[in-house]
Amino acid sequence: MTYALGIDFGTESARAVLVDCADGSELGSSVFTYVNGVIDARLPAPDEDVELGPDWALQDPRDYVRSLQVAVPSLLAETGVSPDDVKGIGIDFTSCTMLPTLADGTPLCLLEDLRREPHAWVKLWKHHAAQPEADRINAAAAERGEPWLPRYGGKISSEWFFAKALQILDEAPDVYARAERLIEACDWTVWQLTGVESRNACAAGYKAMWSKRDGFPAGDYFAALDPRFERVVDEKMSRALLPPGGRAGVLCERAATWTGLPAGTPVAVANVDFHASVPAATVTAPGTIVMIMGTSNGHLLLDDAFAYVEGMCGVVEDGIVPGLHGYEAGQSALGDIYAWFVKSVGGTHESLAAEASRLRPGESGLLALDWWNGNRSVLVDADLRGLIVGMTLATRAPEIYRALIEATAFGTRVIVEAFERAGLPVGGIVACGGLPDRNPLVMQIFADVTGREIAVAGSRQAPALGAAMFGAVAAGVHDSIVEAAGAMAHLSGTSYVPRVEHRAAYDALYGEYLRLHDLFGRGGDDVMRRLKALQREAAATPAPV
Amino acid sequence: MTYALGIDFGTESARAVLVDCADGSELGSSVFTYVNGVIDARLPAPDEDVELGPDWALQDPRDYVRSLQVAVPSLLAETGVSPDDVKGIGIDFTSCTMLPTLADGTPLCLLEDLRREPHAWVKLWKHHAAQPEADRINAAAAERGEPWLPRYGGKISSEWFFAKALQILDEAPDVYARAERLIEACDWTVWQLTGVESRNACAAGYKAMWSKRDGFPAGDYFAALDPRFERVVDEKMSRALLPPGGRAGVLCERAATWTGLPAGTPVAVANVDFHASVPAATVTAPGTIVMIMGTSNGHLLLDDAFAYVEGMCGVVEDGIVPGLHGYEAGQSALGDIYAWFVKSVGGTHESLAAEASRLRPGESGLLALDWWNGNRSVLVDADLRGLIVGMTLATRAPEIYRALIEATAFGTRVIVEAFERAGLPVGGIVACGGLPDRNPLVMQIFADVTGREIAVAGSRQAPALGAAMFGAVAAGVHDSIVEAAGAMAHLSGTSYVPRVEHRAAYDALYGEYLRLHDLFGRGGDDVMRRLKALQREAAATPAPV
Repeated sequence: MTYALGIDFGTESARAVLVDCADGSELGSSVFTYVNGVIDARLPAPDEDVELGPDWALQDPRDYVRSLQVAVPSLLAETGVSPDDVKGIGIDFTSCTMLPTLADGTPLCLLEDLRREPHAWVKLWKHHAAQPEADRINAAAAERGEPWLPRYGGKISSEWFFAKALQILDEAPDVYARAERLIEACDWTVWQLTGVESRNACAAGYKAMWSKRDGFPAGDYFAALDPRFERVVDEKMSRALLPPGGRAGVLCERAATWTGLPAGTPVAVANVDFHASVPAATVTAPGTIVMIMGTSNGHLLLDDAFAYVEGMCGVVEDGIVPGLHGYEAGQSALGDIYAWFVKSVGGTHESLAAEASRLRPGESGLLALDWWNGNRSVLVDADLRGLIVGMTLATRAPEIYRALIEATAFGTRVIVEAFERAGLPVGGIVACGGLPDRNPLVMQIFADVTGREIAVAGSRQAPALGAAMFGAVAAGVHDSIVEAAGAMAHLSGTSYVPRVEHRAAYDALYGEYLRLHDLFGRGGDDVMRRLKALQREAAATPAPV
Repeated sequence: MTYALGIDFGTESARAVLVDCADGSELGSSVFTYVNGVIDARLPAPDEDVELGPDWALQDPRDYVRSLQVAVPSLLAETGVSPDDVKGIGIDFTSCTMLPTLADGTPLCLLEDLRREPHAWVKLWKHHAAQPEADRINAAAAERGEPWLPRYGGKISSEWFFAKALQILDEAPDVYARAERLIEACDWTVWQLTGVESRNACAAGYKAMWSKRDGFPAGDYFAALDPRFERVVDEKMSRALLPPGGRAGVLCERAATWTGLPAGTPVAVANVDFHASVPAATVTAPGTIVMIMGTSNGHLLLDDAFAYVEGMCGVVEDGIVPGLHGYEAGQSALGDIYAWFVKSVGGTHESLAAEASRLRPGESGLLALDWWNGNRSVLVDADLRGLIVGMTLATRAPEIYRALIEATAFGTRVIVEAFERAGLPVGGIVACGGLPDRNPLVMQIFADVTGREIAVAGSRQAPALGAAMFGAVAAGVHDSIVEAAGAMAHLSGTSYVPRVEHRAAYDALYGEYLRLHDLFGRGGDDVMRRLKALQREAAATPAPV
């Protein structure tokens, strides 16, 4: 038998999955919940007196090693698989999640004299305290007409690599100076597995403005941000980037002890969770969007051609599948919005969905803009906010619940149409993530609104399956990710077909959505931004007596 | 001792109150709940097989007589007041609530051959099935440039007298032909008390396009609606209209038996509930708005001058206090909106208000348009709908609750500013109705947003007190309603003063409200109207399977 191990490092836990390389069947999985989870208020013991500022979110790199030490042996024990039959290892990770280390990979936060310094820890993807640095990065890039800026929809996020790195330099120059390496946590974890530093092209492309043709931004751009930042790439990073499925190395002795797997087992270069899900959802060719539907929604599309697409998160050649351009767009809230509403009204998804499913499109008279967490694509504006219009005294909770679902579906249709406007055809959609199995009403409405059939991926743990598939490629079990996907990735068989009888009503509602989208999102009326400014002013005044 | 009896005929019940004419102290009150309440699905037994159409709302005139027969004797018994000490009687009523009768006052619905005919019954104020007739009335008036139209903000409501009368003619011409009188239920009830038909100027002015100077619209206008409608006023109504406080007659023998009061007791001409509340709230002179705050909100203002005010419900000379022009504006939902939200989220007003009161203006980042039941003033558009903007994943229910309160306060500020733009000064506000005692947070926000001190009226049953005061005037106990108010009406002593520290934030938020108000309310973006049209289309399609 030939197995591959995939490990998905999420926000709160890591999940290891053992997969049969012949047919992709999953033999079992094992989850390790991080000891220190998301560190967003104070450092862990014994330094809990060190408080963090607003918008901070850190992690403890020891949690990644613990995941290897706990989840992998227990998975082997549980499945009874012989370690010798595990031929390849791949991991995927949240991103951009990054940390400063010494040249030997030792995280600075593990140094006795730096452990009480928040900037020495891992900055988690949702660390949002580097907004001032992101603003500077964007302003300087726009002013200089940096050629990479349009690839990212004209604006990069505070979540990304150089914003976080620059925040270290700004606020803790000593830590920055001590950092011999600045590295994605995914690459650092592969380093722990192999004993050798490697870097992956996916995270670099989507989160660090790297491209296969142009490399990283030039030194004079970095110098314009801060003279000490000029040589950040050459001093603390690497220009050697491996595409997905590339072999980072083999399992080192130390990691063999941790995991119970044989030293010498091939390890793939690291990958990003959303992107690893694409081949796991059976997609390795142009024309099909993979939607990763969970608390947020990711839209990934492959194409032979390079194109500038409005408001993309990014386009990276070789970023998802070698040989193709990988396009990423997204909605910054999806299940989070539904959950917000369910919590607000104290109902359940099941009861709300049951009633909502009996409504006709348009019957409630409601329309919403789905910007509860800003807009990631295509407007790229974190200051945008949610809106609901059409309430009467007769409006009921299931009607609002359905209007919120419809709004997120309209948001996806905007993204689909942006791809098509840029000349990238979108035939069908494959959905993965936690939501498709849980909420069929959402899936049907997305099919109706987009006018596309939506197939549901077979695996409930697509990122880990994708990581395992890249592990199989790195091990040579499969020659390419295309071949691996052909053998190991499957659809569930569940599929949602657009209902033609709903088309006219949804086209009309979408027309209204687009009008409000452009009115409030493209500067016609900046009320959302002004409300946010008033909110900041209010927060700065004394509380009412 | 000298007492006056006031009876307030509401939507579900009638309330009789006995008041001391010397100081306005209320000796007691007695409520009679109508046996047949609001008839909106089927006629009462034994004709419950007769179903009513959508938007119908009827009442049973026998319920008004039962109120006299039950509530008045029990009030006399409960208070121990000698019937001989009751010197005057006044009533107030919902309006426009109207019915067809024979020349002797017999309601057509009590005739054996007409009792199964819905059009023979009392049409309650919230009977909304005469919208096609209201549309015709408005279109014909606009086309002919009828001089009365601007007094009503350019549009009359389907709730009003001639819309209801025309619906009878349209749909039941036989009933229309049999109707020797068409009469407000308030005037009909006074007829039952006195044995003599009388008509009041208040209802005629606010609901039947009558004015002191021009009388009713001309016959050729009515003929333009329908040739059979040309002489509706002279055939079925009356041009003899008494101002508030005028004496309709004295208690007849039959009504004396019903009530236990002496025959010959003076009875005032009928009045409308909102308008009777004005002097009961101490206001008999220009410069102070009376707000009647309940499920909806009424704004009444007196002035020496006549002016066209944008979007008024109406302006009637002598309509509220003889010698002055009475202006009426309103918000079609107030407490109804708060109740809708409380019901939606399953909380309580108390817990939501407690949290909401700790928020600073603007702190939530939320803004709403308060059009859950359309907009009565100043836009006069029943098709407008509610809107909330600014939600994030962190938005909590008390923040939305406060935003809804603020939106209704902004709506009132629009009305206050419309009065002032028309040259009618607004100094302060006196609030009455059910809400001021129950929700201090609402009151404080209204004061902060309008920048006006809001005093709370002393009586919790202002309409009935006002009716009793007009009864005292009709009886000659007081020479005028001004004198009666000086003696009998009081403020509660509770008053809400605008907090200067909130002025800047509320001015800014009001600016945003006004922008959205004009955008969605004045045709900049007709999304609300289009959503309503889509809703109608959806309702006409088959339900989803």
